[in-house]
Amino acid sequence: MEEQSCNMNTGYLESSAYKKAGRHVRPEGTVLNIGGIKIGGRGFVIMAGPCAVENEKQLLTTAREVQRKGANILRGGAFKPRSSPYSFQGLEEEGLKLLQKAKLEFGIPVITEVMDTRQVELVCKYADILQIGSRNMQNFPLLKEAGQCHIPVMLKRGMNATLDELLLASEYILDGGNEEVMLCERGIRSFETSYRNTMDLNAVPMLKRLTHLPVIVDPSHGTGHAWMVPHLAKAAMAVGADGLLIEAHYNPLKALCDGPQSLTLEAFGILMEELKALAKAMGRKLIVPENSLT
Amino acid sequence: MEEQSCNMNTGYLESSAYKKAGRHVRPEGTVLNIGGIKIGGRGFVIMAGPCAVENEKQLLTTAREVQRKGANILRGGAFKPRSSPYSFQGLEEEGLKLLQKAKLEFGIPVITEVMDTRQVELVCKYADILQIGSRNMQNFPLLKEAGQCHIPVMLKRGMNATLDELLLASEYILDGGNEEVMLCERGIRSFETSYRNTMDLNAVPMLKRLTHLPVIVDPSHGTGHAWMVPHLAKAAMAVGADGLLIEAHYNPLKALCDGPQSLTLEAFGILMEELKALAKAMGRKLIVPENSLT
Amino acid sequence: MEEQSCNMNTGYLESSAYKKAGRHVRPEGTVLNIGGIKIGGRGFVIMAGPCAVENEKQLLTTAREVQRKGANILRGGAFKPRSSPYSFQGLEEEGLKLLQKAKLEFGIPVITEVMDTRQVELVCKYADILQIGSRNMQNFPLLKEAGQCHIPVMLKRGMNATLDELLLASEYILDGGNEEVMLCERGIRSFETSYRNTMDLNAVPMLKRLTHLPVIVDPSHGTGHAWMVPHLAKAAMAVGADGLLIEAHYNPLKALCDGPQSLTLEAFGILMEELKALAKAMGRKLIVPENSLT
Amino acid sequence: MEEQSCNMNTGYLESSAYKKAGRHVRPEGTVLNIGGIKIGGRGFVIMAGPCAVENEKQLLTTAREVQRKGANILRGGAFKPRSSPYSFQGLEEEGLKLLQKAKLEFGIPVITEVMDTRQVELVCKYADILQIGSRNMQNFPLLKEAGQCHIPVMLKRGMNATLDELLLASEYILDGGNEEVMLCERGIRSFETSYRNTMDLNAVPMLKRLTHLPVIVDPSHGTGHAWMVPHLAKAAMAVGADGLLIEAHYNPLKALCDGPQSLTLEAFGILMEELKALAKAMGRKLIVPENSLT
Repeated sequence: MEEQSCNMNTGYLESSAYKKAGRHVRPEGTVLNIGGIKIGGRGFVIMAGPCAVENEKQLLTTAREVQRKGANILRGGAFKPRSSPYSFQGLEEEGLKLLQKAKLEFGIPVITEVMDTRQVELVCKYADILQIGSRNMQNFPLLKEAGQCHIPVMLKRGMNATLDELLLASEYILDGGNEEVMLCERGIRSFETSYRNTMDLNAVPMLKRLTHLPVIVDPSHGTGHAWMVPHLAKAAMAVGADGLLIEAHYNPLKALCDGPQSLTLEAFGILMEELKALAKAMGRKLIVPENSLT
Repeated sequence: MEEQSCNMNTGYLESSAYKKAGRHVRPEGTVLNIGGIKIGGRGFVIMAGPCAVENEKQLLTTAREVQRKGANILRGGAFKPRSSPYSFQGLEEEGLKLLQKAKLEFGIPVITEVMDTRQVELVCKYADILQIGSRNMQNFPLLKEAGQCHIPVMLKRGMNATLDELLLASEYILDGGNEEVMLCERGIRSFETSYRNTMDLNAVPMLKRLTHLPVIVDPSHGTGHAWMVPHLAKAAMAVGADGLLIEAHYNPLKALCDGPQSLTLEAFGILMEELKALAKAMGRKLIVPENSLT
Repeated sequence: MEEQSCNMNTGYLESSAYKKAGRHVRPEGTVLNIGGIKIGGRGFVIMAGPCAVENEKQLLTTAREVQRKGANILRGGAFKPRSSPYSFQGLEEEGLKLLQKAKLEFGIPVITEVMDTRQVELVCKYADILQIGSRNMQNFPLLKEAGQCHIPVMLKRGMNATLDELLLASEYILDGGNEEVMLCERGIRSFETSYRNTMDLNAVPMLKRLTHLPVIVDPSHGTGHAWMVPHLAKAAMAVGADGLLIEAHYNPLKALCDGPQSLTLEAFGILMEELKALAKAMGRKLIVPENSLT
Repeated sequence: MEEQSCNMNTGYLESSAYKKAGRHVRPEGTVLNIGGIKIGGRGFVIMAGPCAVENEKQLLTTAREVQRKGANILRGGAFKPRSSPYSFQGLEEEGLKLLQKAKLEFGIPVITEVMDTRQVELVCKYADILQIGSRNMQNFPLLKEAGQCHIPVMLKRGMNATLDELLLASEYILDGGNEEVMLCERGIRSFETSYRNTMDLNAVPMLKRLTHLPVIVDPSHGTGHAWMVPHLAKAAMAVGADGLLIEAHYNPLKALCDGPQSLTLEAFGILMEELKALAKAMGRKLIVPENSLT
């Protein structure tokens, strides 16, 4: 059986169990700097974009609009983990090139997922942040490879991973030499079937206590329903997250992947306004991109 | 197998499946009136107090202080559901009398749990709101008895109950003739062991969509750790709940029950200030009791 | 937070944590005697019958046939816990009288559920074994009332109850003075949706280690599909259970409750033959009723 | 959201949803042939050995003894997925060479895990069966790579994977051109903490109905406690599995990995005797290796 980082007598995990990720290593918290955009600290970052990169028009339209409405970082999948081999698997390198195009055109950094150790080098050429998805949270060779990269990594919690396992997974990356890691809560699997996953917002304050790494929340996967996303997005800010990862699409009905959980650009804009009001009340600072309308 | 109220093709539960609890019955939402305190609508109610009524000094001190800091309703258990028969089981009728004393002295309504069909009449004599706890969410004879009562009922979600089951349980009370029902999300049981339960805040917007009944959140049971309570309390407001149920104690270290998750009176006061700022940003109205300091 | 009976350092529950239910109290194990039918020890008991008592013909036909095929005890619900108030709630006392009729006619003891403290006395007049269902596993007043009874009690595990909680619940009955208790594993709630519940057969050897009480398995609720029941019934015997609780109906398609998980009488007969062969290989003793065909 | 292979109206998964894995493709079931050892059909295969290959003495002693007692296939990990980067990670190619040595010496085929797409070719040079572990069940690049191999693959169910997801994962391998796939149930993650995982034996008959692929059970990971393994091993045979994957070690107390769930060689031998008796009663055929004592 695997070792426990948990003091089972108290039920508390102990920061000191995590040699490199533990809060004790950097009590003031880590602040990542992605081309001037800071993640961690008093700021609050917004990563938005489509689930999958589908074509130039879809990506560029969505990118321009989410940035205008306040997103700091563009998300979009080129390599897509799909339960079925018969589903759309992503545009692969073609998708990476489109992300680069959006980046050059709008000056917005991009985050995209890597699934295969053999693709890490390729993805690093195009991405500003490497995303390791839920299904790969314990893909240890991939974690080790990410530990060799020179760009930040966002590690998503597995859908049934304990916080202990998430933190130990981050140790693989940190121990490999890459100190730029952030974590992402994206919902766990429970018995409730009326939403895709069960958003575990308890994880945010618990992680913030245990680790110095920034903690992002993904309410799109955490709910699976676009209309729920704004509610959980606001809750994520209120609970103390360092930012959001949100799926937005210029035409969710036609999305090749995850349409039902993607915000329209209009809904994304309304959410941004609500988040600004909330940030103010909570002493948080929403980073507004230069190209933004507001 | 039980009937399904769920449209399994979409994954959505349908409001119309709930004859009396469904949102379609009262689209504008139900607003309960507890001696002038409104639950539902734009208001946001705070129910606070100790897990268990222990003695006069404990209850009156805590009651006075939570009210001064902004609580509208006093909570306190006289009959306690405990996993072990060897744990403190509550003061029973003696506890109810102390709740009445606090009510008369401070003019604060009280909510307290009932566990047994035979005690419903007794508890109704003392309580302003009847609480049905998680372990009794599907105690159908108790639900039917509560349906005969003339006071409002707060029904807590079972720790592994689906929203469908929670709504059907509320139908038992409504169908019995008692229209004054509110629901309470208090955390579900998951595989994560670093907190007592896993707060399911997805449940709040989903319930608000499905039912006209007010939805309360209990972050004390939802986390099990006092230091986490303020984080989740704020998230509960941000996600759209109608109020909070919070355990507070004048000396948590000496509490006979649930000390680790009880806020000190000081921490409760700080939380109330934070909630006020948040309510303002969100257009919500915290009801301030007349005896309150602020 | 509730006390823990679990030694968290090892992950093992300790028998000695359970004052009356712990294996250390009676290391040789408890053998209950229900009118000559022994539960516990080398024997293997079969309790079978319809989910709900529906009418005289249904009950008597089913009773006669399950007994002829080898069932020792007749099950049938008169008070039915149903998720919805609009579902069939059982025949109540009328159902109890039909059970008594079957008992007198065939000389087969009966087990039936009680849900309300106020009905315990009534049900005890008719039943040979009192069943406390999953939803009431932590209905503490009901457990206390069952502790005052003079007939054996079968306590079913809650669908999300830990073994620790199940054992502590049994302590309520034992501590009340009723020493005749058996436990029943009936499936837990998991994320898997292709069966109604997830049969937890790990629970059987773990419970047998921790407690001296007999452990029964209910594969009907544990699967929700009649065709799966024989597979899990055999597994339950192989894993070391003391008996089975099985739903059988003379016409499952017309059953008012749980038809999809009820065996036809023919399928029940085939299963009994398979169990006999298995029992022989495992050194277990199937108790054959006098009226049985074989 | 991902497509559903599930007919949500009935709760049944439909075999026809799985183009290559579905039972309809080969109604009589697939029988794999591993150097003369048949997996599937009436036979029952035993794969046993240490969790991790540690050194020559450990592996050869264990291999010889498990074979003498009746194991058909030797298991042993050379690449170990460990939650923490600071745990023993396996002997890697050195471990593969030791497995080969055992194979040559005892004529026993070997199964070993592969975790990285880049190692598939290497592992295939030494292994007779490729194991894809729980944490990699949805490592889609790895599944695709395994689809290109010319040796059979055992795919373990993820600890929170639905059967639908497991079957779709197997489609990746089958669709890649490798038709020799078997599945393995190894316990799911539940709320119960007294065992490492919760063995889901419901999965066996459900998988056997849905797919033509053989289904193996791993009671070592499914329980985490060596003393529980024989109970669940017998239950797995009774429920209809095609074989077992069991951890055995010549000195579990000194095992570098998973000692608490490893059988001693003596306990393994006793279990084999019990399985033989059970197989006879159930009309199953235990394949006895030529070198075996019995």
